[in-house]
Amino acid sequence: MERPRHQGMAKNTCMRWRLPLVCLLWEAAMIVLFGVFVRFGAEADAHWEEEKREMNLTSDIENDFYFRYPSFQDVHVMIFVGFGFLMTFLKRYGFGAVGFNFLLAAFGIQWALLMQGWFHSFKNGKILIGVENLINADFCVGSVCIAFGAILGKTSPIQLLVMTLFQVTLFSVNEYILLNLLHVKDAGGSMTIHTFGAYFGLTVTRVLYRPNLEQSKDKQGSVYHSDLFAMIGTLYLWMYWPSFNSAISDHGDAQHRSAINTYCSLAACVLTTMAFSSMLQKKGKLDMVHIQNATLAGGVAVGTSAEMMLTPYGSLIVGSISGIVSTVGYVYFTPFLESRLHIQDTCGIHNLHAMPGLIGGIVGAITAAAATEDVYGKEGFIKAFDFTGEYQTRTPSIQGGFQAAGIVVSLLMAFAGGAIVGGILKLPIWGDAAAENCFEDDVYWEVPEDEESDAYHMHNPDKPASP
Amino acid sequence: MERPRHQGMAKNTCMRWRLPLVCLLWEAAMIVLFGVFVRFGAEADAHWEEEKREMNLTSDIENDFYFRYPSFQDVHVMIFVGFGFLMTFLKRYGFGAVGFNFLLAAFGIQWALLMQGWFHSFKNGKILIGVENLINADFCVGSVCIAFGAILGKTSPIQLLVMTLFQVTLFSVNEYILLNLLHVKDAGGSMTIHTFGAYFGLTVTRVLYRPNLEQSKDKQGSVYHSDLFAMIGTLYLWMYWPSFNSAISDHGDAQHRSAINTYCSLAACVLTTMAFSSMLQKKGKLDMVHIQNATLAGGVAVGTSAEMMLTPYGSLIVGSISGIVSTVGYVYFTPFLESRLHIQDTCGIHNLHAMPGLIGGIVGAITAAAATEDVYGKEGFIKAFDFTGEYQTRTPSIQGGFQAAGIVVSLLMAFAGGAIVGGILKLPIWGDAAAENCFEDDVYWEVPEDEESDAYHMHNPDKPASP
Amino acid sequence: MERPRHQGMAKNTCMRWRLPLVCLLWEAAMIVLFGVFVRFGAEADAHWEEEKREMNLTSDIENDFYFRYPSFQDVHVMIFVGFGFLMTFLKRYGFGAVGFNFLLAAFGIQWALLMQGWFHSFKNGKILIGVENLINADFCVGSVCIAFGAILGKTSPIQLLVMTLFQVTLFSVNEYILLNLLHVKDAGGSMTIHTFGAYFGLTVTRVLYRPNLEQSKDKQGSVYHSDLFAMIGTLYLWMYWPSFNSAISDHGDAQHRSAINTYCSLAACVLTTMAFSSMLQKKGKLDMVHIQNATLAGGVAVGTSAEMMLTPYGSLIVGSISGIVSTVGYVYFTPFLESRLHIQDTCGIHNLHAMPGLIGGIVGAITAAAATEDVYGKEGFIKAFDFTGEYQTRTPSIQGGFQAAGIVVSLLMAFAGGAIVGGILKLPIWGDAAAENCFEDDVYWEVPEDEESDAYHMHNPDKPASP
Repeated sequence: MERPRHQGMAKNTCMRWRLPLVCLLWEAAMIVLFGVFVRFGAEADAHWEEEKREMNLTSDIENDFYFRYPSFQDVHVMIFVGFGFLMTFLKRYGFGAVGFNFLLAAFGIQWALLMQGWFHSFKNGKILIGVENLINADFCVGSVCIAFGAILGKTSPIQLLVMTLFQVTLFSVNEYILLNLLHVKDAGGSMTIHTFGAYFGLTVTRVLYRPNLEQSKDKQGSVYHSDLFAMIGTLYLWMYWPSFNSAISDHGDAQHRSAINTYCSLAACVLTTMAFSSMLQKKGKLDMVHIQNATLAGGVAVGTSAEMMLTPYGSLIVGSISGIVSTVGYVYFTPFLESRLHIQDTCGIHNLHAMPGLIGGIVGAITAAAATEDVYGKEGFIKAFDFTGEYQTRTPSIQGGFQAAGIVVSLLMAFAGGAIVGGILKLPIWGDAAAENCFEDDVYWEVPEDEESDAYHMHNPDKPASP
Repeated sequence: MERPRHQGMAKNTCMRWRLPLVCLLWEAAMIVLFGVFVRFGAEADAHWEEEKREMNLTSDIENDFYFRYPSFQDVHVMIFVGFGFLMTFLKRYGFGAVGFNFLLAAFGIQWALLMQGWFHSFKNGKILIGVENLINADFCVGSVCIAFGAILGKTSPIQLLVMTLFQVTLFSVNEYILLNLLHVKDAGGSMTIHTFGAYFGLTVTRVLYRPNLEQSKDKQGSVYHSDLFAMIGTLYLWMYWPSFNSAISDHGDAQHRSAINTYCSLAACVLTTMAFSSMLQKKGKLDMVHIQNATLAGGVAVGTSAEMMLTPYGSLIVGSISGIVSTVGYVYFTPFLESRLHIQDTCGIHNLHAMPGLIGGIVGAITAAAATEDVYGKEGFIKAFDFTGEYQTRTPSIQGGFQAAGIVVSLLMAFAGGAIVGGILKLPIWGDAAAENCFEDDVYWEVPEDEESDAYHMHNPDKPASP
Repeated sequence: MERPRHQGMAKNTCMRWRLPLVCLLWEAAMIVLFGVFVRFGAEADAHWEEEKREMNLTSDIENDFYFRYPSFQDVHVMIFVGFGFLMTFLKRYGFGAVGFNFLLAAFGIQWALLMQGWFHSFKNGKILIGVENLINADFCVGSVCIAFGAILGKTSPIQLLVMTLFQVTLFSVNEYILLNLLHVKDAGGSMTIHTFGAYFGLTVTRVLYRPNLEQSKDKQGSVYHSDLFAMIGTLYLWMYWPSFNSAISDHGDAQHRSAINTYCSLAACVLTTMAFSSMLQKKGKLDMVHIQNATLAGGVAVGTSAEMMLTPYGSLIVGSISGIVSTVGYVYFTPFLESRLHIQDTCGIHNLHAMPGLIGGIVGAITAAAATEDVYGKEGFIKAFDFTGEYQTRTPSIQGGFQAAGIVVSLLMAFAGGAIVGGILKLPIWGDAAAENCFEDDVYWEVPEDEESDAYHMHNPDKPASP
């Protein structure tokens, strides 16, 4: 009836030994690798007093901690509450949404500290970490949370851990290529986080295509209160996105500017989302799916350009467009992707991250190409694009070209990586559920008998009422 | 039955073309006006390096961003999650509470940046914005969220957008009169935000009086889990109120002091609210309506005086009194207002914002009038009340008089403005719902069939079970 | 039936006069005591300008407010939303969980400001408060929230207020002994907050042992959405724990380091918790009770050592172990404690706070004993352990011994204090509910008829459908 009891499970979804094994092995590996490689950076080390003298700092307030920690905490909330609760919209997958997101993110940040550390904070054989590393680890995991959105409800926790391992690795490589080799600016991660994460996830879900997913169609929707839980996620993502885009920008004006641009873009995005949500429904009613997701596209779409002189009205334009694109995507593209391209995208990450991410990359390239010393000031110009050392002679238009190249690289990495990782996840050893048991917490979680089903049993004398 | 299907709607509530039109037109207007007027302030502009030299600042940490951004984010959470979820207590209006609050606030902050910008940040034909402007825009929208509380469940989203447009405008004029013409101190907005916002909203709901609202009485209550959702809103408002009252105070001691006073006032308020909630119920049981709302009155009531030398015990006294007044208001005044004065106040903003706002204004006037150089120190005295330039000769008692005048002006603006805007909203073109469909999300939202109603249908064979 | 109506209550649980009396009396006492003793500290006082000159500070950003306020707000969220919602897992006790936590914490912080103030901030007959006092008051109340977890659902609000009064007092005495007499380091409170709070609560619940608690067994579980509400609490505790452990550390590297260590420990803890949760269940399914609680043990267990040079891999090890210990505790120890020792521990604080708190104390002692000038640097070494003045000659190994003594003192204070307070709470005058009405909001709260019960009544023609 109503909720299929999984007595007829064809697949072995028992996690009893596999999940503990993977978790414990990987945590052990983390401990060993951290032991060998990870140490405190100068600003978190007890030698800070000496460091302060050397760097000629007069006050503890100059410690990077005070520049970035509040933003770090906001980003942290976005990853764990924001993404976690955004995905609780499914009526019977709230535990999996919040719980698996918690699991993969907790593992991912450890691995990301290592991977990103080797690329960016490696000195004399040690990775030296500080608050900026924590933010970057959270960012990296953000891209995994995005990909999780595409396969939500269809994968086992082990598959998610395997995917996290590979995706964090690929993310770090891609990030290194963009930031270090191409010298691209992408503080809010339109390319590195959103474009890469979304197309990676979409490729994975394509490879894992389930032809019989119709069998769990009744569980793919929301119920009234699950939509409210999801709004908690939405609002925390929306409110803290200015912190996300400004968290690792340069101290001072760049952080300040990023926050303002993002604030403006997001505000505009809400209005165009509401407009199109109502316009595209026959009776003009608003659709919670759009409000929960498309309102956030404005934050994605200024990810690259927020720290540039995009200007507030530029941000309003970008936010307005991305809200429209995203809402239209939910109404027309998602069904198309599923029926024609066999891309089953549970949360619609194509609309919330993939397309707005591309917009973000393009807007970033244009904004960079259009930069002038007049607008930025002589010093500000050099500082904003880091045109020093070997990049001293780079012009804005060349920078714009490299920015565009960054989009292409991210896409290629996402497609290639997603295909390989999808292939690995397709192996029949990871314990994923059968099609009729997708989107159902009962497979991997002890689920309490809830009040509603008490009521249900009460009126079905042939079924026992006890839990 | 149970939940009236709105087949018999007398009114046309279809938003399909009206809502998109309003949203898109206004967003287009915002883009044009931002394009003409809004630019980055000095601390968010790429010319910051030069600015720093001119202002003789040695470190990026002196950027206002680092003084105010954490408080800004707390205020942001209060507006979107705080007010949004506080209003989800209604059993069938959670989408409207969170969603419409989201819509009006996202529009309101854009318009507020312009309106407040013209009054306060206008230089050489441009509005120069920074983090303080973002906070002020959120504050301004806070007063709209308050007014929304009075008409919650009875208005269409278009009416809310129209009200927001006018209320933000009037708020900015009132704020200009108070802060610039009367030279009044009101950092936490007891007068400008709460008194003005609440009496404005109460006047609007009086004009929109619905004699047949009894027809939707069954939907005006809460259910168990909607009360818990509302507590999320309550707690975020309560916890972050110290940030609210200190967000735009002077750097240093004033911000510090505001936070402490507000913390103390709120703590005391919880105890007197609990006491009176239990005392005023026959069986001594606590009422969630009081806990959700009256516990916050202490934050409202120190809004004006928190940055002054109110002292911690002064704050305890103010908080204690406001908790009592607010709880008594819910028990006795709200029914009276509805039955005698025809003021239908869905959330009881009269108790949470109007009366405590007045208390706040009065306490502020008294605290200002009682200020002495002895208590503040010579420099502190001048700095706290900004007794410089043309106000050099103002005495505390005169300042107290001006503070009191600020209350009166706010009230007059609220009544006059509310009457006019209420009249506009009464026009039969905005698509508000019939009385029997008030407090029902189904009118403006696609609502999922929820589990409970599945159960319902299951046992009613004559009704189809499919969504 | 289903939910026992409490018609047969043997005990008088009516709070109508008792609760208001206690609340109002105590608030009046707070006002008087604050009036006599509490004033603003130098950094929150209007004389700050003069103070700045005296302390030779050049900028307002040097005000302690900017070093600690963001962390304070995170801690504040942990106390009110974190603990409050963590305890909403019970199906019919959500109001009590959030509401009573709100009540006791709001009272507790006032009393803690006084108690801790007399011990630590008393100058010339006045308690001078600033943001650090607010954090410490929240910390102190945290230990009461922990104890509340053991007796959740079984006590009246008056009992909770009485317990808070005594526990805050004892906490402050214990804290004074540890920090001032033993000169112990415990910034994150593994000993002062967690060990003391948990064993205090466990002793109280032992004294209050209810042999017939089986009668309300059906209400001691969760329902689907109550588990999701609880996850809000869990995640906010988890995310903000780095702020908790770093909030009162020394400015600069110590705050920075504490946050990093805590972040690492918590991440590791999630993986081992998931592993053991799955491993210890027959079908390998994850248990929400473990995810909600044991994932937090890593934060508790680095409370003492986080500001020391524990190093990131040290944190991973501590976090991993505490996740295992805590999960195993839920599966094996909690039933044992209940059946053999008659300790009824509603939330399992023995697993989340008591054992991890002990681990934290021990790890702290070891880390302190192992400290060397080489690792900390000459200045850093002295600063980290405050080896100045009369403690100039203390060696790391002696410090380790004193740290260990701190654990013992905390345990003794907890057992003795808990026994006495438990005895007081056993008096039959406080209005606690009968065993069959435990874990039921209906006893102390006006509870709305909810949708589920509407459905229920609808199919029971012999019961009236009206609320």
